[in-house]
Formats: sequence, C-alpha cells, structure tokens
Amino acid sequence: MGTKPVLVVHGGAWAIPDEFGERSIPGIKNAVKSGFAVLEMGGSSMKAVEIAVRALEDDTMFDAGHGAVLNADGYVELDAIIMNGKTLAAGAVSCIRNISNPVTFACSVLEKTPYVMLTGMGANQFAEKLGIPQVPVEELVTDHAKAEWEQYRKYKQTGAQKKVHDTVGAVAIDCEGNVACATSTGGITNKMVGRVGDTPVIGSGGYADNLVGAVSATGHGESIMKVTLARLILFHMEQGKTPEEAADSALHYMEKRVHGRGGVIVISKTGEWTARFTTKRMAWGAIKEGVLMYGLNPGEIIQEIIKPSK
Amino acid sequence: MGTKPVLVVHGGAWAIPDEFGERSIPGIKNAVKSGFAVLEMGGSSMKAVEIAVRALEDDTMFDAGHGAVLNADGYVELDAIIMNGKTLAAGAVSCIRNISNPVTFACSVLEKTPYVMLTGMGANQFAEKLGIPQVPVEELVTDHAKAEWEQYRKYKQTGAQKKVHDTVGAVAIDCEGNVACATSTGGITNKMVGRVGDTPVIGSGGYADNLVGAVSATGHGESIMKVTLARLILFHMEQGKTPEEAADSALHYMEKRVHGRGGVIVISKTGEWTARFTTKRMAWGAIKEGVLMYGLNPGEIIQEIIKPSK
Repeated sequence: MGTKPVLVVHGGAWAIPDEFGERSIPGIKNAVKSGFAVLEMGGSSMKAVEIAVRALEDDTMFDAGHGAVLNADGYVELDAIIMNGKTLAAGAVSCIRNISNPVTFACSVLEKTPYVMLTGMGANQFAEKLGIPQVPVEELVTDHAKAEWEQYRKYKQTGAQKKVHDTVGAVAIDCEGNVACATSTGGITNKMVGRVGDTPVIGSGGYADNLVGAVSATGHGESIMKVTLARLILFHMEQGKTPEEAADSALHYMEKRVHGRGGVIVISKTGEWTARFTTKRMAWGAIKEGVLMYGLNPGEIIQEIIKPSK
Repeated sequence: MGTKPVLVVHGGAWAIPDEFGERSIPGIKNAVKSGFAVLEMGGSSMKAVEIAVRALEDDTMFDAGHGAVLNADGYVELDAIIMNGKTLAAGAVSCIRNISNPVTFACSVLEKTPYVMLTGMGANQFAEKLGIPQVPVEELVTDHAKAEWEQYRKYKQTGAQKKVHDTVGAVAIDCEGNVACATSTGGITNKMVGRVGDTPVIGSGGYADNLVGAVSATGHGESIMKVTLARLILFHMEQGKTPEEAADSALHYMEKRVHGRGGVIVISKTGEWTARFTTKRMAWGAIKEGVLMYGLNPGEIIQEIIKPSK
C-alpha cells in the first residue's frame, strides 16, 4: 500500500530512421498516458500494462497488432505475453493470426485456461470460442508493412534490407506494489512462417516478480532468448544491482556472448526504473510522480510536467 | 580437453505407477547407453543428447515422439528443444505433428535456420521442405495413450484422472568440456489444442551454458515456466551451489511459490551431476567413468559396472 505508481513503455529497439523515430513519439506518449491513467485511478499494474500495450498495438507506427510486419508468406503472425509479478501467473500467445490485440488475448489465456502458452491454430480456435473478434487478414496489414516486405523480397539477395525489430512493451508498478510486464510483436519482416521470437517466451521477452521487479525486452529475438534476457536482468537485481546496472550488464553480456543487440525497460519492486539499449535507438516513455519522460537516442531524456488527474 | 564424459537422462517426473515404473527402466538404460556411446567415441555432447532423447522418443513407454499422449482433439502435438552450451545456440519446436523425432527436427532448426523456435503448421511445412519424414497421424499413437485419453474424457468431470507428465530429456558433457541439453514431450493428456508447455521454452524446459552447466526439466510445465526452472538452477550454481543444492533449492522454491512439482537432471561444467525431483518418482539414468546408475524412487541409486568400450 502507498507505493507510488510508475509505468514505462517501449516501442522497439533498432536502427530507427529519423523520420520514423519522430513519428513514433506521439504514440509512445499516448500509450504511457493511457496506461498510467489506470494506475492513477487505483487500477492494477496488470491492467495498466495491458492498456498501454493495446494502445501501441492499435497504433500502426509499431510492429505489433495493427501495423505488424509480414512473414515470408505475406501475412502477419503475432506473439505476445503478459505476466503478473504477484503470482508469477503468465499468459502468452505465439503465431496467432487475425487478432487485433494479442496482449488482451494473452490475458485471456492467463485468466481462462490452466496454461501459460497457446500457439497457432489451436490458439486461434480458442480465441473464436471466447468470442474474441477475428479481423480480416488484410486489416492488420499497413501499406508500410507491405512496402517493406516487397522491398525486402526484392533486395534480399543483396543484403541491403534492414532488420526491423520494433516490438512494443510495458512494465508497471501499482499503488499496492504489484509489478507486471507485457510485450507484443509482429516479429521480423519476411520471417519464416511459424517463427517464434523472444516476445512470448517467459523469461526472455518479459518477466515480472514482485520480489524483484519487471522487465520487457526488445531487439534481436534469438539473442534475447539465448541469454533469457528479462530473467537475467532480474537475477542481477537480486544480486544487488540497480535496474540500470543490471540492464547494462545483461545487454553487454548479450552483445559479447551471442553478438546480439537490444533494449529493455525495467522497473524494480520499489519503483526505480530505467530504459536502456545497445541498438542505435529505442523509443520509450515513462510516467512517475507527475512527470512524463521520453526519449529515442542514447542518453536522451525529455521531461514534461503533466498534471495529476486528481 | 581431457574432461571425463558424462551423460544423464530422465523419462519424466510424476506419480509413476509401480508397473509403469519398472517397465520404463530398460528404456532408460538403453537411452543412456546409446547417448554415452557417442561420448565414448569422442562425439559431441550435442550429438549424445540428441541420440539419447531419440531413443526415448522411439520407446512407446515414454510421452514423447512415439507414445506421446493425446490432446483434446485426440491427436499428438509435440514439443522439443536442444541447446549447445558452447555457443548458447538452441533449436526448439512446438506443437508439431506427425514427426517421430522432434529432437532431431529441433537440431535442424538450430543448424538450418537463423531462428531458435518454430511452431505449428509453419514448423511442419519447414520439416517437409527438409525432407523430414512425416508419419501418418496414427503411427505415433499407442493403444495406451488412446486408452488413457478415453478414460480421461470419461472421468474428467469426477476429478479422478491422473495428470501424466513423462517428458524425456538428457544432459551431457563431452571430452572437450562442452555441455548440452535436450528435452522432448507430448505434453499432458487431453491438453487444449495449441497448448505449449515448458519443454521447448529456453530457460524453462532446458538450458545449457559451458560457463555453468546444463539442465533438462520435467514436471508441471506451467509451474516450470513461471520460475524458468532450468535457468534458475544454473543461476544458483553460478552463486556457488552444487548441482544437487541448486536443484533442490529451485524445486522447493517452485513448490512453495507456485505450488508445482517436478524433476530435473543437472550437469556442471566440471562433470558433477544430479537427478532430483519433488514428485513421487522420476525415472533417470546416468553413466560416468564406467558406471551406469539409475533410479526411480526418492534416494534410490542402483549401480551397474559397465565395461568401457575401449
């Protein structure tokens, strides 16, 4: 009781082009405000991270939900996870199709099944049973995603394509001191059908534990999995490192050991938070004690005072 | 160089009935001998764990490959992982159908794609492309699995059904000091179509790291995922615990925190090993320095001197 609520979001860590980066900031601000509004009203960190990630999934600027990148067959396959730090309960979905808000579906897996992870057709069948609307295949596909996919396929022999990893995620602590994380993604452009990245993999794309804190990760999925990045950061924090030290230590280890880069948002059980990355850029935003902070470039923290709603 | 090779296998941790337990021992011995033969000839720990797990997948006594339990729709969906402790490279498959040796397919994911995990239909399409034989649906289904499924569906309202978790796995260290792990399963009887357990989830069903050791886990999949059991054990070992202390500590934490039971086989980077469980029984076997050891009940270690092949 009495913990000051904090919410942090990210919109993916990669070599974000200038124009793309600037255009993602309004979406980041909107998502962090939406999620924080839940916490301010006394809502749970679980609901807050779900709402924040939904906002990012609905925003076509990000590779999750609406706006997700296309796989080798030219359609979207989506992954998501949500985890409750109080109980360690988690819900995850991988390789699902035609669902606008994978994070909300992941919540349903947590709440309505004895399972942690559902995949593919079976997951989609369960969504149908729950009455979760399945949108037409084309609805989640943006012109940008289609253009990127076509360009990738045209130039893939030349090595000129860019690897895009703009997974979205959120971590939060609520006024009862409960932490949570959520992560959602469309994966990587032209990925093999059936490829699952780190996002829905517990301990890799996200982990939350009230005894330590919560993490949402983004970046090169296979590298993140090889080092179980989210869990690794929390182990460092258990050993006494601050969120920033733990994040930097784990991200540098990932780069050294498996040559992969990425970014993370981290929150501790006492509400300390950080957003760190080894990629060129990561779009992130946070709200704590009436201040909205956000950034895109290394070391950048832009502050805006926002009025508390009460 | 010069490390004494060790191989450990398990055939699942659960309330194994007497008759079932006795009948699983020959399969355990066969698997551990098959895998150890690879190490004795100077082969890699990766090849050794693959061969050992293949032997268990081919044995209808175990819930993996041939003999896997049936899902809610009455067919098998298989999960597997293999991980190389030298490079942290891993290959995993989830929810695949009609493939006799998921562990070997997981090897192909590691060797022939830039990915760690493939799932469902996309994974099966890739298997077809590789020429991995897809067996008829019925071929992997045993009379026992069918009878158990029918009994489950008949009595599921009464709570009389037994939960069966006989995942198989192996960990090894080769003469070059490289560790590896592999785990394979059919999951749990009458599981929802699309349910993915801990087995193919890196850090949960298995993890291998030359700097520490390797683990293969079995038991209540959702609990194992919530505590990322394999990685947790290796973190304890990094902090100075022996494999046995680390395994017991993590298994008891899992029981206390999320009320789940299971079993693990663990090997350290110096070839120390253990087989520990909090379930009623776990079938396991190990070979080190010319001695075959195996057991089924808590505290039980039966030894047989085997002649080294050279």
